[in-house]
Amino acid sequence: MDKFMQAALEEARTGLSEGGVPIGSVIVHDGKIIGRGRNRRVQKGSAILHGEMDALENAGRQPASVYRNCVLYTTLSPCPMCSGAIILYGIPHVIIGENRTFMGEEDVLRSRNVTVEVLQDEQCIGMMEEFIRQKPELWNEDIGV
Amino acid sequence: MDKFMQAALEEARTGLSEGGVPIGSVIVHDGKIIGRGRNRRVQKGSAILHGEMDALENAGRQPASVYRNCVLYTTLSPCPMCSGAIILYGIPHVIIGENRTFMGEEDVLRSRNVTVEVLQDEQCIGMMEEFIRQKPELWNEDIGV
Repeated sequence: MDKFMQAALEEARTGLSEGGVPIGSVIVHDGKIIGRGRNRRVQKGSAILHGEMDALENAGRQPASVYRNCVLYTTLSPCPMCSGAIILYGIPHVIIGENRTFMGEEDVLRSRNVTVEVLQDEQCIGMMEEFIRQKPELWNEDIGV
Repeated sequence: MDKFMQAALEEARTGLSEGGVPIGSVIVHDGKIIGRGRNRRVQKGSAILHGEMDALENAGRQPASVYRNCVLYTTLSPCPMCSGAIILYGIPHVIIGENRTFMGEEDVLRSRNVTVEVLQDEQCIGMMEEFIRQKPELWNEDIGV
């Protein structure tokens, strides 16, 4: 596995070990991770800290010129909120661990000229399948169902 | 002015007095404000705390049944990130102070069956016009330009 997706997966696993929703993300600029994060709904009682949002927040305030040269890695297909954040900041390239357990707004991203790659990684799929089986109510809350 | 838009405008003015981006939002459920917030890019060094996001965060973790009966008020047309959050949580009704100084994703919201009302309120317009004139770089950062 690509080292950046590996880092996103490590974030997701840390989240799982904290009792949280196991979704992780890293933002890469010029070959370096400038922000990493994980879903913190449980850990921080947050309605907005999905993995991608947490990674964006941890990257801090960046100029548009940085975002426009970033790649965002996420273990799971990004929801409407996270896809909207990607569009707001003009992040041009998103690499997704899997979209089998949840299909996010990939079509919207592509329609806004974001390059979207989906790895269908078995580790990402297995982790989410197990989580959804164990905590369906928490998962539904996270995706607004 | 409607008391809920007035509350959103008060949030925006508080943000302005803190040196921040003057955009405020409140979320109303059953006639009561359950979350209020303002853009905190400057105050918290945040890339994700737009006014609507801050209001969502301050409302805390809510079940889908609550979001589906909320009205979100915001002084300015919501950007892609905030519109995505509205779609994620299925908030059915958004009331916007103005869209003259910035046109957000109102068409996307309507395409997802969100009722969108725009007041074109002169106080909201004047506040943003003055802010954009005084701090164009901060404003551009906030909208990813």
